[in-house]
Amino acid sequence: MSEPPQKVATLLVSCADQRGIVAAIAAAIAGAGCNILDADQHTDPQADMFFQRIRFDVSHLGVDPAEAERAISEVSKRFGMQTSLSYSDRPKRVALFVSKYDHCLVDLLWRSRAGEFRAEFPLVISNHPDLAETVRGFGARFEHVPINSANKAEQEQKELALLRERAVDLVVLARYMQVLSADFIDRVGVPVINIHHSFLPAFIGGKPYHQAYERGVKLIGATAHLVTSQLDEGPIIEQDVVRCSHRDLVSDLVRKGRDLEKMVLARAVRHHLEDRVLQYGNKTVVFD
Amino acid sequence: MSEPPQKVATLLVSCADQRGIVAAIAAAIAGAGCNILDADQHTDPQADMFFQRIRFDVSHLGVDPAEAERAISEVSKRFGMQTSLSYSDRPKRVALFVSKYDHCLVDLLWRSRAGEFRAEFPLVISNHPDLAETVRGFGARFEHVPINSANKAEQEQKELALLRERAVDLVVLARYMQVLSADFIDRVGVPVINIHHSFLPAFIGGKPYHQAYERGVKLIGATAHLVTSQLDEGPIIEQDVVRCSHRDLVSDLVRKGRDLEKMVLARAVRHHLEDRVLQYGNKTVVFD
Amino acid sequence: MSEPPQKVATLLVSCADQRGIVAAIAAAIAGAGCNILDADQHTDPQADMFFQRIRFDVSHLGVDPAEAERAISEVSKRFGMQTSLSYSDRPKRVALFVSKYDHCLVDLLWRSRAGEFRAEFPLVISNHPDLAETVRGFGARFEHVPINSANKAEQEQKELALLRERAVDLVVLARYMQVLSADFIDRVGVPVINIHHSFLPAFIGGKPYHQAYERGVKLIGATAHLVTSQLDEGPIIEQDVVRCSHRDLVSDLVRKGRDLEKMVLARAVRHHLEDRVLQYGNKTVVFD
Amino acid sequence: MSEPPQKVATLLVSCADQRGIVAAIAAAIAGAGCNILDADQHTDPQADMFFQRIRFDVSHLGVDPAEAERAISEVSKRFGMQTSLSYSDRPKRVALFVSKYDHCLVDLLWRSRAGEFRAEFPLVISNHPDLAETVRGFGARFEHVPINSANKAEQEQKELALLRERAVDLVVLARYMQVLSADFIDRVGVPVINIHHSFLPAFIGGKPYHQAYERGVKLIGATAHLVTSQLDEGPIIEQDVVRCSHRDLVSDLVRKGRDLEKMVLARAVRHHLEDRVLQYGNKTVVFD
Repeated sequence: MSEPPQKVATLLVSCADQRGIVAAIAAAIAGAGCNILDADQHTDPQADMFFQRIRFDVSHLGVDPAEAERAISEVSKRFGMQTSLSYSDRPKRVALFVSKYDHCLVDLLWRSRAGEFRAEFPLVISNHPDLAETVRGFGARFEHVPINSANKAEQEQKELALLRERAVDLVVLARYMQVLSADFIDRVGVPVINIHHSFLPAFIGGKPYHQAYERGVKLIGATAHLVTSQLDEGPIIEQDVVRCSHRDLVSDLVRKGRDLEKMVLARAVRHHLEDRVLQYGNKTVVFD
Repeated sequence: MSEPPQKVATLLVSCADQRGIVAAIAAAIAGAGCNILDADQHTDPQADMFFQRIRFDVSHLGVDPAEAERAISEVSKRFGMQTSLSYSDRPKRVALFVSKYDHCLVDLLWRSRAGEFRAEFPLVISNHPDLAETVRGFGARFEHVPINSANKAEQEQKELALLRERAVDLVVLARYMQVLSADFIDRVGVPVINIHHSFLPAFIGGKPYHQAYERGVKLIGATAHLVTSQLDEGPIIEQDVVRCSHRDLVSDLVRKGRDLEKMVLARAVRHHLEDRVLQYGNKTVVFD
Repeated sequence: MSEPPQKVATLLVSCADQRGIVAAIAAAIAGAGCNILDADQHTDPQADMFFQRIRFDVSHLGVDPAEAERAISEVSKRFGMQTSLSYSDRPKRVALFVSKYDHCLVDLLWRSRAGEFRAEFPLVISNHPDLAETVRGFGARFEHVPINSANKAEQEQKELALLRERAVDLVVLARYMQVLSADFIDRVGVPVINIHHSFLPAFIGGKPYHQAYERGVKLIGATAHLVTSQLDEGPIIEQDVVRCSHRDLVSDLVRKGRDLEKMVLARAVRHHLEDRVLQYGNKTVVFD
Repeated sequence: MSEPPQKVATLLVSCADQRGIVAAIAAAIAGAGCNILDADQHTDPQADMFFQRIRFDVSHLGVDPAEAERAISEVSKRFGMQTSLSYSDRPKRVALFVSKYDHCLVDLLWRSRAGEFRAEFPLVISNHPDLAETVRGFGARFEHVPINSANKAEQEQKELALLRERAVDLVVLARYMQVLSADFIDRVGVPVINIHHSFLPAFIGGKPYHQAYERGVKLIGATAHLVTSQLDEGPIIEQDVVRCSHRDLVSDLVRKGRDLEKMVLARAVRHHLEDRVLQYGNKTVVFD
């Protein structure tokens, strides 16, 4: 996608489908003197829902973003919309949760350093100390928060405090091997994206590469999804697969899977950071 | 895509980028009482061009399509737009040109019969008689128009007359082994889609599978493109590839390529029939 | 793959892994004066099993295939092998089972007519009369064997008799909507390949495209597998996927799935017809 | 692939096709008491060439690798073969050449550290100093060898000396932006693998992503090939593509292409390190 030098606002809208929505939003934005750059729209006829992603320029002379916000807010109330608005000059802040595997971590931090994401990665939390040096090599803060069954509730409080303190907008579980408690998910207040190392809903649960090996599949997959209180059941953002064969041992599936996990998670994170993902029920709209 | 029972209009717009376009079009459609169902939009910042595909319902009580057309026409003049408007109850009419290979022909006619296209296929023209029976088995009219260097101009006149007589909206070259003259292309008056059996611009010209074999590539491709007077240089609509290896002889590439040609051509035809393709310069916007 | 004019034998071997197997087989074939054209080999270190596919020329002057068979049989006994031997001049005979959907049927018969398979398709069995004309258009025999819960045992006997009468080597369920009884599977005596319209083991059972739609997956798949008495649990031969999105309704998944089912089933059938598939436990080795 | 604890020899063979080769090699290896683990074989009927990759266990009691080598050498002479033999306990040594882009470099060094390659990476040579710290962070030696038109011959001598000094078996150009001289290629004495950022032979030469953008392709590719004195014309080892659209600017193609370059180069390097690649004429056999 084009990344123009101007200041761009991205509006996400979801609501019950009804007549006149598109025209009303366009009029609100144009009325505030903003030029619409890009718009994607979707109607789910079964759920009877309407979704829109609309990007507009707020850097023109005489444009007052606050006025656009007021106009959008008015339309939003009229149509019963859920909306979110983000600005290109306020990059999202991402916290990564990791354990011992470093492939997704290194991949995301490398991409961030290479300028692939319009985002900041100020915090990495791990239940193991192993990746501290790797994280610091990328200039991010590393917090070791060991967790066991006895201290889980208390340690999750600590994690929530760290997220608030660092003003995090998104949590990414980059092969984090702890299950988040329902309480944590309730209270985190920002989206949480997880990478599952199978083509969900195949091979839900533990050791999916072993399960795939036993079943003799000819493709293995990875799935990035939003985390809900239902383990491995959250809305899917992105999936992909790679071919395997009778020659692949579990160790080969793990190796091929690493590449897949990196790619799928990076694409999902990118989609989210560019405000392309809307959740409804157990599904997503991903405007690409 | 959803295929609602209502009567739907699809508007394609392209013009120089400028402020207020989106809002103006939305207002014109809403002003005529029509509900916008779906909209996709693209700005090419390099070419400074704006493109939109917008679908709206014209089956509501009190909606007058002619009023929508007048309003759109007014906006179109104001902004210097190129527009096209089609209606779901007026299916496009497609002519196929073939020679001796039947795979793309059978694939397209089978898809048509299976209801995959909202279109009619009233005419097949061939420079060989071989596929007459196959075509008639699908209930389409077959016209044998043999061509040699001496009679080409005259026979192309005959083809143009057949296209006009059958009120054709689109010509598809489904592995047609004759080069259309510049004169034919000038006068045909409807888009012409061709399938080239390579990943253009690799292996331009004759015998691309032989060229691919000689070069030892590890993937072969197919390309569906709009036909212009520049052979194999027209705007690309769709491409895909399939893996090959040292084990593949030319005959294997031909076999694998057939599957690819069918898929790529069918997708391109489908995109065109659903009014998803806009041409500009030597490129296309394909809203999918 | 090369398709030489000579008469070629293809030997498939599976046995417990042990020293000297490769050399013993090579010596047996060479000893009978045959030239080895191609050999693939695989060892599963976990199952401790050895697999080989070996093609050799039996058309040279002075070669006696019977002598090669004797030598192979001797090696086979010595090492406790399971072997199968087929000859390029004795094409396999395939029966298709269908119901009402014609896409896999037409695809396989078209490929057969186009010379893609070294096989004959002398028989199509259906529990519905609808596809009789389509089948006869390809010159194959159509047998209507209607099945209900009351007559199932009896009608399956009729099917088995038809398979024997037509000397069938392979049964392909080309979207056949009846579950074969355990008794049928026990007695059929030839491999049975099925196409399941999901990426197994995801969406086992009925209406997988509806299940996929409800789950909001971003890819849909198809799986060709050998049929065992465990429904949807047989050894997988081939799988593939295609991308889908929030824009796809169930009807779109069905349409995209048709292309996938055709491709995946055709590849699996081709692999089997070229003697590339070995089954062991619930898995396959596919030498490609 | 399985990575057994035993010591494994991998033999690559190429020669004119002739009767008895497979049996002779198998007999030579078995005669030396070695068990064949895996064998792949290919005949190119057009070039009339035979190729084989054969892995055998040399860790059994009583096995003398030297005896196997003598037996193979005898067979090799008899049939006029080109052979190469490598052992699992003597990992290949790889030198990387880089300029300023770090994505392929970091990817390869990360994979090496993660144990994906059975190889050592003792040396990185660059014409720029920028990546020195990155390289040292992975524990590899970094050599800055700046090159301009005046000093090229002399600096290439220095590079050749470094390769010899570090006993390098393979050179990988990981987005190295200097053209190697014909003299360097003649004298380097080990294979050189390059990653080209297009689907060769499309977009040969400079700025392929710009060329792809101008042409409006719907897929971009990357190609890993062996370097010969013909720029971008060497034998292809591996290629892959990724989908792009009208929404992708050149900067997006560059970003998507980075992922592709990493994957394609890593696969090609892996294939080479596992002795799966044989070159003949301008082609490769890649046994996978």
